[in-house]
Amino acid sequence: MEGPASPAPAPGALPYYVAFSQLLGLIVVAMTGAWLGMYRGGIAWESALQFNVHPLCMIIGLVFLQGDALLVYRVFRNEAKRTTKVLHGLLHVFAFVIALVGLVAVFDHHRKEGYADLYSLHSWCGILVFALFFVQWLVGFSFFLFPGASFSLRSRYRPQHVFFGAAIFLLSVATALLGLKEALLFELGTKYSTFEPEGVLANVLGLLLAAFATVVLYILTRADWKRPLQAEEQALSMDFKTLTEGDSPSSQ
Amino acid sequence: MEGPASPAPAPGALPYYVAFSQLLGLIVVAMTGAWLGMYRGGIAWESALQFNVHPLCMIIGLVFLQGDALLVYRVFRNEAKRTTKVLHGLLHVFAFVIALVGLVAVFDHHRKEGYADLYSLHSWCGILVFALFFVQWLVGFSFFLFPGASFSLRSRYRPQHVFFGAAIFLLSVATALLGLKEALLFELGTKYSTFEPEGVLANVLGLLLAAFATVVLYILTRADWKRPLQAEEQALSMDFKTLTEGDSPSSQ
Repeated sequence: MEGPASPAPAPGALPYYVAFSQLLGLIVVAMTGAWLGMYRGGIAWESALQFNVHPLCMIIGLVFLQGDALLVYRVFRNEAKRTTKVLHGLLHVFAFVIALVGLVAVFDHHRKEGYADLYSLHSWCGILVFALFFVQWLVGFSFFLFPGASFSLRSRYRPQHVFFGAAIFLLSVATALLGLKEALLFELGTKYSTFEPEGVLANVLGLLLAAFATVVLYILTRADWKRPLQAEEQALSMDFKTLTEGDSPSSQ
Repeated sequence: MEGPASPAPAPGALPYYVAFSQLLGLIVVAMTGAWLGMYRGGIAWESALQFNVHPLCMIIGLVFLQGDALLVYRVFRNEAKRTTKVLHGLLHVFAFVIALVGLVAVFDHHRKEGYADLYSLHSWCGILVFALFFVQWLVGFSFFLFPGASFSLRSRYRPQHVFFGAAIFLLSVATALLGLKEALLFELGTKYSTFEPEGVLANVLGLLLAAFATVVLYILTRADWKRPLQAEEQALSMDFKTLTEGDSPSSQ
């Protein structure tokens, strides 16, 4: 029962935390839709409502889908590594395409209305997130899915990929919070301080965004919930360890 | 050289990363001071400038000092555990006191000017951070510094304490970004979009805040930079492992 070759049972509480994260994520998406529908006139491409495509796409792509993409290695613990990798990569593709639509929406809206681009902290963080996300995906794809990279290179890059994945996700959530705040201050102005329903709704949405990020991060970082090595990976990794330790005994 | 009892040599790159984090942290504090001095009239307690005490204290307390408090276990790798713990706790006390001054400043300023309190997302996140920080400190103190808690209790609580410490730090930085954005939009209004020097300075400050958080998180999470167990801790931990495994073979 303790052998690494048999599929390890999922840790007891993990499914509940995953379910909770999904509940939070779906509430965040639904509340973003509700906010835009109730207080901002809904969504359309060919009108001033085009702006509203931006927050909805960003929340779905760079918050919900990106968060879920990070969780696949915890959720699909006993699937073949390759299947899980492909799912991880695909979820990021979906996230990227949806975020791209959201990005086009806001630039197109600015152009039509004659607004300046890229002056705010939200926009600077957003462009940074988008660029980092793209680079991380490209590098991840060439190291882990493209067959060329050696096992040694993958092993060395993996911790960096994991760290920057989490960091880009967190920066996405922080950027969403900044955007939400910007949208509130632009629209509500001094009415924000009178506890207008829109302000309260958006504040709650902001706290739920932070809660979603916290739960995803908790699931990701809990040591005993890490994906166990499968039998064939275990064998490979041991071979590799023996090989490299034989090759360079003084390496870090 | 590989025995756990001899003081482990510090991992090669760690000091450079720590130095880089300190450089970023000090630049963030200095730039906050420069922003308040150059564009907001400086700092005073008994005037409208009282508000400016708030961002400076929060950046020093809840960003810089809190970040450094998290790093002490990586920096003082070979000191006695108790010394490091006391330093960790003390840095948090300083952070708390400085943040408290910043909190009093903004409430006092609101009262004098007749502004509403606690309506914005920044303030909601801020109060949440402050409450979580206080609870985390109290629980940390009673588990790790107060002599009452058993070794078993400490071992089980430690990963939670570490996770929530990092989460509270990250939420502090996100709250600072929200506050910075709020201060810019209130003051600059539509001038923000004309790339006013103050707006550009504050945007750069925001990116540096995010960079400081990223470097601190990187140092904290890198597996091979974790603090090694000292000889006496190793012995204790082994005794404990034998004891508990004897007590409850089916646990976990």
